[in-house]
Parts: sequence; structure tokens; C-alpha cells
Amino acid sequence: PRASMSRSRSPSPLLDFPYLPPPHRELMLSLLSTVHSRLASHLLPSSVPSDVLSFHNDASTSFGALDIRSGAHDSPVDFILESWLHCKLPTGALNITTLFGFLNASTEAPHLLMEFIQGSPTSLVLFMDLLPRKDLVLHPEYLAEFYQDTQLEKLRQELNNLPYVQPYCSSSLYIRSVLSPTAVAVNINCGADGESSMEEVMGAQLSSVAKEVLQIWLDKCACSSHQMEESKRNVLIQRDNLIKTKTVEIDLSANLPRMFGPNVAEKIVGTIQKTFRI
Amino acid sequence: PRASMSRSRSPSPLLDFPYLPPPHRELMLSLLSTVHSRLASHLLPSSVPSDVLSFHNDASTSFGALDIRSGAHDSPVDFILESWLHCKLPTGALNITTLFGFLNASTEAPHLLMEFIQGSPTSLVLFMDLLPRKDLVLHPEYLAEFYQDTQLEKLRQELNNLPYVQPYCSSSLYIRSVLSPTAVAVNINCGADGESSMEEVMGAQLSSVAKEVLQIWLDKCACSSHQMEESKRNVLIQRDNLIKTKTVEIDLSANLPRMFGPNVAEKIVGTIQKTFRI
Repeated sequence: PRASMSRSRSPSPLLDFPYLPPPHRELMLSLLSTVHSRLASHLLPSSVPSDVLSFHNDASTSFGALDIRSGAHDSPVDFILESWLHCKLPTGALNITTLFGFLNASTEAPHLLMEFIQGSPTSLVLFMDLLPRKDLVLHPEYLAEFYQDTQLEKLRQELNNLPYVQPYCSSSLYIRSVLSPTAVAVNINCGADGESSMEEVMGAQLSSVAKEVLQIWLDKCACSSHQMEESKRNVLIQRDNLIKTKTVEIDLSANLPRMFGPNVAEKIVGTIQKTFRI
Repeated sequence: PRASMSRSRSPSPLLDFPYLPPPHRELMLSLLSTVHSRLASHLLPSSVPSDVLSFHNDASTSFGALDIRSGAHDSPVDFILESWLHCKLPTGALNITTLFGFLNASTEAPHLLMEFIQGSPTSLVLFMDLLPRKDLVLHPEYLAEFYQDTQLEKLRQELNNLPYVQPYCSSSLYIRSVLSPTAVAVNINCGADGESSMEEVMGAQLSSVAKEVLQIWLDKCACSSHQMEESKRNVLIQRDNLIKTKTVEIDLSANLPRMFGPNVAEKIVGTIQKTFRI
């Protein structure tokens, strides 16, 4: 009931986004529903303007939906960002969904990043990670707490060892630096085995690993009572701001204009930058 | 003449280590000769005791050679560590060679790590990296200077795209954290194509990429005049000490006793810890 109350309080157009291949859509819906129900009391109503909640390019070949929910006072959640993008291309369609859970400086626990980039019905690039907030080389105890003790490596290996799955390297060295050593970064390519194999992988193993990663983040990070000393917050904030700035620069500012034209892209990036306070 | 003088001043038993497969041995000899000739004026004579310079287990099935050359006063080199290990196993022989170039806190330029772990005549795990001295997420300008502008990514891709080459993940999350986003971490497995293919890969592409990476480190890092402010040295030293401590703990302390027995292993690890000042 908490989840449905939260949804009815701020009906999200994202949940109606009709453009995704069904297994991709179902996976995202299920992840978002978990986030919303678990974090309901943490999140303020959306303040994203309606032309950003849902948008398209002039030719109506690209459609997007973006929602950002800021964390309530006293919540360790800074914001939850959800975005769905769909672009018709000469070669088929590109579908990108993103779930980004950013925490504020009251905690040093990792952020959540999940991104599914589906270039065709049979291929998908996937990033899934708890993003470290501290230099892991200098803080082995942080590595132990959030990455070793949580068994994230087992989940990463489970996915990486599946058929059709290959390691994937972001072309951005900065994004690679931002990821943790247990980040899932893979390319799932079912090739000639086609859509039914992709449906199977997404509906079974991928979905199960994604849900476990999300659960770890919700339990250990977003809902933890781990408190940061006031004096240590500055370097955390500085590092978080760099992650936000560079992510927008590398990912959105580079890709949105191509997909939606400069005007729509500017509006979307502007809204994100406002929420990110960068 | 500088190189040969330096060599005759401190004749290294490493160069006579007779146990490696020839292509592996030639590659290491060539890398070491470049290091010695370029850094001759930087390095003090070896102070490693003779029973560490060359050692073996009681059964004489495992042989090792280790040399550490500290940097001279006013050199940015902290030390150069070279080690060669050979273990006869029921399944064949394991050969591990390591070249570690550590800089001191007069510079913040990256350290050098090269490690070749040859589990059989047809398979080799390889780590090759300039190890960052700073948190790359917090210091994008450092990432740009040492990793983007040096084109290390092109070299990484060159190797990763070769036949027989697969990405390799260290089982230690800490080691993964220590590596840069352009680290070469691969498994070369020539399988049924056998020794001649491995010889070809090692003698041609691997050797050429390794020499280029070494050259970048020598030019941009070990011989750079980039000076660190006194005030920033403490965190650098703290981070370097963690890298040294954890590397010894994860790599040597865990593996040497198995290969050489506890007494020999203790002597080797002790010598390394003394040089590392940890």
C-alpha cells in the first residue's frame, strides 16, 4: 500500500512508457517498484516539469521519460533518477533505461547505478554497480565493508559466466574509474539464437542478479544509519560533485542532442543539472 | 657503456636465471636492460643479501631470484624490484616474472607494474600498468595527463584484440582497485595451437606493447621533473604504503610459503618489507 500511495501521489509517466521490448520493460518496472515501495517515506514528490517527465524529438522518432525524486529531509537519499529512452534507428531501435540512486553526505555508503543499453532485440550492454564514494586504495576497510562482505563479486561472476555474456569496457576512462571492482559491465549478445534467448536471460538470471544488487544497496546503503562525521563531508561532496558533473558531461551532454535535437536536450540536461546542484 | 658499467658494478644473478621458457626470458631481459640503461644514474648498487638474490626450496623444485635497487638521493625512483620465480609442478612448470618500478613522494607520477605469470608453455596471465598514485575520480586532470594523453588505452586495446587473448580479472578486489582504467590484465591462452603461437605472440605484439608501456613510464614518470609540494606528500606516502603493504600481503605472503617453504619465504618477504619500509 505504501508503494501505491506513493505512486498515486506522484503518478509517474515512466511506468506507462510503452516503447521498450517487454522483457526490458518488465525488468525496469520490477526494479522501480521495489525502489518506490522501499523508499516511499524517503522521497519527496517529483518536481520535474511535465515536458521533461515525457519528451520526444521533432520528428517523433525518439521518445524519452525522466523522473527525479529528491530525498526528504533526514533521509540519506539525495535523489533517485529514472530515465527511459527510445530511439528509432535505420537499423532498428535503441532503448536505454537508467536507474541512479544517489546518496547525500550524511552517509559515505555507495551510490547505485543501473543502466541497460539495448541496441537490438538480441543485444544489451549492462552496467550495474554500487559506486564507491571513497578511494578504495586508501580505504581497504570501505572495500571490505561494501564489496567483500556483501558478496557482490559472486553476483558479478554469476552473470559473467553465463552464455552470451562478454565483459564490456566503457569507452570513457573516467567512467571506468568511477566503477567499483565488482561492477557488472557486460555485453549480452544472443546473436543467431535470437530474441527468445535474450528474453530468457533477462527474465531469469539478469533479473535475479539485478534484484539482489538492488537489495544490497537498499539494505546496506540507502537505509543504513551509518553516519558521517561533519568534518569529513567536504571531500565526499567534492568527489560526488565530480561524479555528477562528469557523468552528465560524458553521458547525457554527449548523447541527448544526437537523439532529441539541441533544444529538447538542453531542457533535459538543465533539469538534471538543477537537481544535481552542479 | 653506462648500462654495462652499472651491470658490472652490481652483477645481477637475475640475468642468468636459466629456468624460463626462452621467449619469456628474452622479453624480461630486454625490458630489464632498458630499465637499467635508462635509470643507471638513478640506482644505488643492490643491497639484497646473496641468499635472496638467488634461492630455492629444500627439494630444489622451486627456484627464485630477487633484486631490489633503491633510488639514489635526488632521484624520483624509490626502488626497482625484479623477481623471477620458477616452480616445477606435477602438471608442468609455473614461471612468474615481475618488474615493479616504485617512485617516491618527490613526484606523484604513477608506479610501474609488469607481471608475467606463465602457467604452461601455451598460457600466460599478464598484468601491465602504470599504477595511479591518486584517486582518479577526484583528480580527472591526473587521469588526463597520465592515461588519456599517453594513449595507453590504444596499447591496451591492441593487446586485448589479439587472437588467444581474453580479459583477466584478479581474484583480489584490492588489486583490481589498485589498477588503472587502462591496465592490461589478460590471459593469453594458445591452447591447441601450442607453443609456437605463444612464442609468436610474446616475441611480436606482447613484446612491442610491453616496451611501449615501459617507455611511457620512463619518459613521463620515472624521469619527469614534475615536483610535488611538500605539503601534499603525506597522503601520497600513506597511499603508497598501503599499496606496498597490501601487495606483499596478497601476493607474496600468500604464495611464497607454498612455493618455497616457510623459512625461505620469510627471508624473501622480510627483505622486501625492509626495502619497502613497511
